[in-house]
Formats: sequence, structure tokens, C-alpha cells
Amino acid sequence: MTTAKIQTEMISLADIYGLAEKVLISAGCNAENAAAISQTVMRAERDGSVSHGLFRVPGYVGSLRSGKVNGNAEPKITAEMSCIIEADAQMGYAPLALERGLPVIAEAASQHGVAIMKVINSFHFAALWPETEYLAERGLVGLACTAYKPSVAPAGATEPFFGTNPISFAWPRPGQSPVVYDMATATLAKGDVQIAARDGHDVPLGTGLGPDGQMTTDPAEILKGVLLPFGGYKGSAIALMVELLCSGLTGDYFSYEAEIHDIADGGPAKGGEFILAMSPKLIAGDGWETHCEAFFDKLGALEGIRLPGARRHNNRIDEGLRAINTSLLEKIRSL
Amino acid sequence: MTTAKIQTEMISLADIYGLAEKVLISAGCNAENAAAISQTVMRAERDGSVSHGLFRVPGYVGSLRSGKVNGNAEPKITAEMSCIIEADAQMGYAPLALERGLPVIAEAASQHGVAIMKVINSFHFAALWPETEYLAERGLVGLACTAYKPSVAPAGATEPFFGTNPISFAWPRPGQSPVVYDMATATLAKGDVQIAARDGHDVPLGTGLGPDGQMTTDPAEILKGVLLPFGGYKGSAIALMVELLCSGLTGDYFSYEAEIHDIADGGPAKGGEFILAMSPKLIAGDGWETHCEAFFDKLGALEGIRLPGARRHNNRIDEGLRAINTSLLEKIRSL
Repeated sequence: MTTAKIQTEMISLADIYGLAEKVLISAGCNAENAAAISQTVMRAERDGSVSHGLFRVPGYVGSLRSGKVNGNAEPKITAEMSCIIEADAQMGYAPLALERGLPVIAEAASQHGVAIMKVINSFHFAALWPETEYLAERGLVGLACTAYKPSVAPAGATEPFFGTNPISFAWPRPGQSPVVYDMATATLAKGDVQIAARDGHDVPLGTGLGPDGQMTTDPAEILKGVLLPFGGYKGSAIALMVELLCSGLTGDYFSYEAEIHDIADGGPAKGGEFILAMSPKLIAGDGWETHCEAFFDKLGALEGIRLPGARRHNNRIDEGLRAINTSLLEKIRSL
Repeated sequence: MTTAKIQTEMISLADIYGLAEKVLISAGCNAENAAAISQTVMRAERDGSVSHGLFRVPGYVGSLRSGKVNGNAEPKITAEMSCIIEADAQMGYAPLALERGLPVIAEAASQHGVAIMKVINSFHFAALWPETEYLAERGLVGLACTAYKPSVAPAGATEPFFGTNPISFAWPRPGQSPVVYDMATATLAKGDVQIAARDGHDVPLGTGLGPDGQMTTDPAEILKGVLLPFGGYKGSAIALMVELLCSGLTGDYFSYEAEIHDIADGGPAKGGEFILAMSPKLIAGDGWETHCEAFFDKLGALEGIRLPGARRHNNRIDEGLRAINTSLLEKIRSL
């Protein structure tokens, strides 16, 4: 497979936001939902998370047009118990439910030391770091995970059963950017495999199996076959935990149920998200920042080490133009 | 390297318990601490977790004799906030602190939906599944993790910095054994590398680096060098989360601090443990068992899949004699 030369166009963050918003509104979103989703798209492009940026807009539009997702959803945030928050997205996209729910879980964790938010009846089509970073920026430890339609074979099997089941974890560092990661428990995120296929890049052997059940470096073959979990049996155990937290513990669809109920209109499947927030100030107590900063200093000083999230936060400092795939822009503008 | 023929002796679970108890008491434990530790040792042998059974007794004794660990510790369980429990082991071994603290976190999670217990000033030398299984047997989801002295190089580095940082997760299945796993975030648990070295078995390439920084299959070389995290960068990110939860969030030692303060008497280093308990009944609500059992049925039906914990629970059904390494038994009896 050869790598095609990719044409790009330089566009500003404001224009990325504006383009997404315009297209979403024309596809049936109300202003609040369009703003929340466009913010998510713009931040992904800003941070260099291109597989969760404009690349997702045609999918967002697809599920609005099919009627699967309600662009006018009014998320309902409830907390019958002080540490357990429910964010019911009411069959809308996740960003507005998160925008309204995150302040509630942050407040609960800051007051009680720990809180959980289950996001349900939502369509999540973005990265998870916006959730965990929000919490970390408020002095809280954040953990979030979600599932998706089956595309990963549990270790030992050859059939897709788990979603790519991403997990994001963020640790607060008062006065500086949090340590944060967001990773699929598949060897690669499906979006990255899709981008590799679109751009004609190979992926590492071990990423997944082709439709023949054999390992391949061709992303297009893996998209027709199945991804593997990272790290063999142990990674598969983490993927299982993600599935149980975001589906078993929210009551929303497991990956296999999401597939049964989805209409494959290009957008995301309905599902749940699990979010955990914890207060180191209340749990570890005084001195936690100093204790942890000494740890990060030691870790960061090891040769070959970069703290997770640093690259994304460095990208963010640049508020200038972003290079966006021209054919993607044409596709979005035509929507 | 050739595999030596290993001599074993058949001994009953009661005798395993009795042997551990007798030796611990003679090394300075009071009755309560000796009983809690011996229970932990016996259960490990019962379930086939041999690296956490009698194999650990010489180490338990070593740290009692050196005076590092207090065999008469009176753990203090406090809950200043309703969802955050502190189990201060008072410089004793973890089992008694856990025996007293677990009912408190289980009660808190059953009442509030979620609870955290930080175990501090403890010496943990056992598996973590006894903690998470305890919670799962009471209808709760359990997550536990702890660190240790540095023996794992973060992905990208070649120096030890993380402990083997095990993580255990258990999911309740009312009426049957929970789904539970307990795994080092190193490629192998150090105990397994030690047992492989003792028994003359090779380990898979990729398990760790020798003192020369090169990969090797010789466990004795890896014990002189460094283990690697499972699953490359992603597994390393999980190991980082474990380190932050069990040290940053408890306020107890990070792995690198544990090493600085430890006197290397053969027993474990002082450290913290993080335990999270969540109630699916209160979080997911009615119908959670049926929803999850359907998932486990689907997963278990895939070719090549065994649910985590099944092998250990099957071992448990056999209440008969266990084959114990003869030289280990001689060593313990001589203590």
C-alpha cells in the first residue's frame, strides 16, 4: 500500500467551530446542542485529536438526518443520591448532557470526596478527555469510559464482541495542565484505523485480524475484520471492565446490544458512559499536591518519558490555523 | 535452562492455615493478626494462587523479626465522611486492617452507591482478589490496587520506577461466583518471576529486561534487571493510574518512596491500597442482574473464552490436600 499525498486547507479554530455549528443547525440541531457539539469538535482539532474533530461531522449529521438522534434533546440531570448523578441525554448527543452534568458531579465529588455520573440514552461520538480534564481542572481525579458497537475480539476469541472501549484518566496538577490520557482498549481507536485507511497508511501487525481471521497491517482489511485488545489477556480484562462500568453499571447498552439496536446511519450507536470523580484533597488530605508533584518530577526526569497529555496541551498553546483534509472540508460544506 | 523436578508434599488446608499461624505467632504476631494473615495464606493455596500462599510466609516472618512490621498492630478504621473510609493498619500487615475495614466500605457503598477505602501504613504481601471478591459477594463492584517497590520500567524508559502495581476488579453475580481478576500491570507478577526462577522455568520474551537492558527469557536475569509493563504504552498508562490511586490518592508511599524507606528484610514495603466499591443496584437500578447475566452468557459462549476467576473458583471446590513445595515447607518449619 502506498501513502497518498494528502491535500489540506488552513482554517482557524473559530471557523472550525462555525462550520460545525452551521452544518449541525442545518441538519436539525437546536442552538444549544449545536454549540455543545461544535465546541467538542473544535477542541479536538485544537488539540490535534483529529479523529474526533471535523472527521466526525458527517456522522453527526447522518444520525440527525436519519432521526436516530434528537438534535433538540433536553438532557435531564438528576441526583436522587448525593454521590450518584444521572445525566439522561434524552436520545441526544452527549456534549450537551455533559456540559450540564459535569458541574453537578464536580460539586458532588468536591463535597463528598467521590461521585459517579452515569450518562445514559446518549450518543457519544467524541473523545473522553474533555470530561476527565474538566474534572482535573477543578482539582479532581477523573475517570471516564464508554463502549461502542463490537469491533474488538476478547483475547482468545476471533469474533468482535467488545467495543473499542476507551478509557480516560486525568490527574489534577493545580497551576498546570493535568496529566491526562484517553485511549482505546483496542490496539488502536477505530477512528485511527479509519484515518489510516483513508490516508493509505499501514498499521502495526497485531492491531487486528482481517476478515480471514489472520493478522494484517492493512487498515482497510481490519475494518472488514476485527480489532484486538491492547496487551493480550490483560488488556482484554481492562476492556471487560470498561464494558461492565459503562453498560452494566449505567444500565445502558452493552456493545453487542448497541449493535442490535443501531441503524448504521454513519453516526454513533446509543450507549452509556461511566464517569468517576474523586477529590484528592478530601481523600489523601493536606499535602497531596506536593507529594504528587514530586512523583511527576521523578517520572518526567526518566530518559524516554513524556507525561501523558503533554503533547495535546502543547498543541493547544497554538491558537493559529489548523490544516484540515480538503476532501473532508468539501464533504462537510456540501452537507 | 532445564526444568528441575520439583518435590512436593500433600498437606490439608487446615494444616496450611495451622502452619502459617504457628510460625507467625512464634515470630511475634498476636492471635488476631496471625489469624488474618494465615487465612489469607490458606485461601491463596486453596485457590491455586501459589505465589501468594505459603511462599510468602518467610517474608512475613522476616519483617516481623526485623521489627519493620508490628505483629500486634491494632488497625484503626475511621470514616469522617460517609463515603470515604480510612483503614490505618498502624504499621501492621494488611489482612487485619482489611478484615475490619471491608465491612465498613461495603456498608457505605450499599447505602450511598459508592465508597472508597484507603488503606494506609500497611504492609501488603498478598493478592488483591480477597478484597474485591468480598465486595462482589455482597452485591458490589470492587476495584482494588496497590503499588510496591520499583521493578517495572515505564514504557519508553529502561529504569525501574513503577511497582508491579496489581489491579483487581470483581463484578457481582448474585447466586454464583463473581467475575474477578487480579493481575499485575507488569507483564508478570514479581512472585511469578521468582517462582519461575526457583523452579527453573523460562518466561516469555518481552517479560522484562536483564541488567544489560536487553530482553531475556531467564527469570533470574529479569530479577536482576527490570520488568516491563504489559501492553506497551497503554499498559504503562494503567500502571501509572494504579500508582496514582494507591499512593497519590491515599497519601502513602509511591513505589520509589517505598524503596527509599524499606530495609529489604525479605518482607513487603510499606504502602497504601486503594479500594473502590460501587452498588449496581443503586447506580444501574432494577434489572441490573438480568442485564449483566445476558452479557456474561454471550461472552462465555464465544469460542476460546473463559470468564476471569473461573479457574480459581473451580480450584476452590476441591477441599482436599494441596501439593506444596517440600523445600519451602522445610524452610517454613525451620522458622
